[in-house]
Amino acid sequence: MSAFSITRRVEFGDTDMAGIMHFSNFFRFMEVAESDFLRSLGLCVSWVENGVKWGFPRVSAACDYAKPAKFQDVLTVAVNVEKVGKKSVSYSFAFSNQHGEALATGRITSVFCRATGSEQIEALEIPPHIRAKLEGQP
Amino acid sequence: MSAFSITRRVEFGDTDMAGIMHFSNFFRFMEVAESDFLRSLGLCVSWVENGVKWGFPRVSAACDYAKPAKFQDVLTVAVNVEKVGKKSVSYSFAFSNQHGEALATGRITSVFCRATGSEQIEALEIPPHIRAKLEGQP
Amino acid sequence: MSAFSITRRVEFGDTDMAGIMHFSNFFRFMEVAESDFLRSLGLCVSWVENGVKWGFPRVSAACDYAKPAKFQDVLTVAVNVEKVGKKSVSYSFAFSNQHGEALATGRITSVFCRATGSEQIEALEIPPHIRAKLEGQP
Amino acid sequence: MSAFSITRRVEFGDTDMAGIMHFSNFFRFMEVAESDFLRSLGLCVSWVENGVKWGFPRVSAACDYAKPAKFQDVLTVAVNVEKVGKKSVSYSFAFSNQHGEALATGRITSVFCRATGSEQIEALEIPPHIRAKLEGQP
Repeated sequence: MSAFSITRRVEFGDTDMAGIMHFSNFFRFMEVAESDFLRSLGLCVSWVENGVKWGFPRVSAACDYAKPAKFQDVLTVAVNVEKVGKKSVSYSFAFSNQHGEALATGRITSVFCRATGSEQIEALEIPPHIRAKLEGQP
Repeated sequence: MSAFSITRRVEFGDTDMAGIMHFSNFFRFMEVAESDFLRSLGLCVSWVENGVKWGFPRVSAACDYAKPAKFQDVLTVAVNVEKVGKKSVSYSFAFSNQHGEALATGRITSVFCRATGSEQIEALEIPPHIRAKLEGQP
Repeated sequence: MSAFSITRRVEFGDTDMAGIMHFSNFFRFMEVAESDFLRSLGLCVSWVENGVKWGFPRVSAACDYAKPAKFQDVLTVAVNVEKVGKKSVSYSFAFSNQHGEALATGRITSVFCRATGSEQIEALEIPPHIRAKLEGQP
Repeated sequence: MSAFSITRRVEFGDTDMAGIMHFSNFFRFMEVAESDFLRSLGLCVSWVENGVKWGFPRVSAACDYAKPAKFQDVLTVAVNVEKVGKKSVSYSFAFSNQHGEALATGRITSVFCRATGSEQIEALEIPPHIRAKLEGQP
């Protein structure tokens, strides 16, 4: 069962000449769901603390498409935390439309990182207080 | 060995606030590589013939990110046909930058379809002359 | 005074490496505001009726930027119908953030059109019942 | 007469359900033309020098659309420097397709800026050596 979901409308600019949402925009919708999920936990995909940039850049993203999403469809994107690893977190995303039809399933794995210098990013162990939130511990 | 590749520059609008190419834009680059590959064979991702719409909508897409792509990087995207199934074709995409560094690896599976009516799409067996081209037969 | 407005959050993917919303995305936000405004009137930016495609393609779009929109800002986009011409409608859009700061002002002019054949579009006079709605007549 | 132009193909992902390039993507094409033009002069839309961020953020952008750009069209975008002001530079952009048809005309005004602190940007007078390049002085 999903602990978190968002809804988002397919806008005209999200479609392509096939008359359906362009396949790349499912990843943008996943990002919105991921961001809103993190925000609901008091976390963020990217932030600055004591002059250091922290965040969760993605190391993998995937989507399987079953049915097209159409202009003006209001999609529900349900987020599940699949795994909290030492340095990474993996989500799955279930897309459905306003008729309850399953449209697509996505996956994103993000790594906890800090930017060191202007050009380097370094993966770090997820601190306990962030891990607890991601794991849904009260 | 890759039979086909494109180069494409990372534009300002392709970046995000992390200072690197947004992860969703790797899928747009893959699409350009797929389209150019099909065009090089005299095929297309979408076309109309005798009033019927034909094309190769995607049923899955994935990307693994190893290193970030930066503003003004000129990326090479090498395309390989991994498998030509009965109704689908699977590609892999290898991203590298102008320094020869491997950045990411992607995969797309597209299904040969025709649009029947304004709302329905139907998967079909890939015809022999298209299959031969995708398989690189002379 | 504005008769209609929407709110929309600046997502991570809307930003660029300058750390602010990419200037082109203001046009996407305007489109959402325009679409929602038309929907609130029972109209649409694009629809099919009796097998004919109707819609309001844009003939001009402009934006003046005063202050940047930042990641996670919740923007209000207020829509005003500036002019309903014989065949076109012009909107203005006022962008502000959650602090009430004015960020940008946009303008779009759309023309009432039908698609004739697969390749041609033809501008038409706006019918009285659509004109009345756009002009806010009860 | 235009001193500089680029060509760029309309990709599948640049189109919308009307079957033509989405109006917002003309601004992305203008940005590519602006960036390439600046690069041809040894300049950039955004760079870091001595730890300070410099660049040319846009203060206004506009486009008038005459004919649609279609999938696979190869657009020529000709850039003209319309005016080099004290702190700003204004460009015009003329879009045409591979048949020589004029499609659209755009305008962008960018301001010479430096980022002071993480949140502030400050407009500055364009230095003489940059002005000379923008004005096409040898």
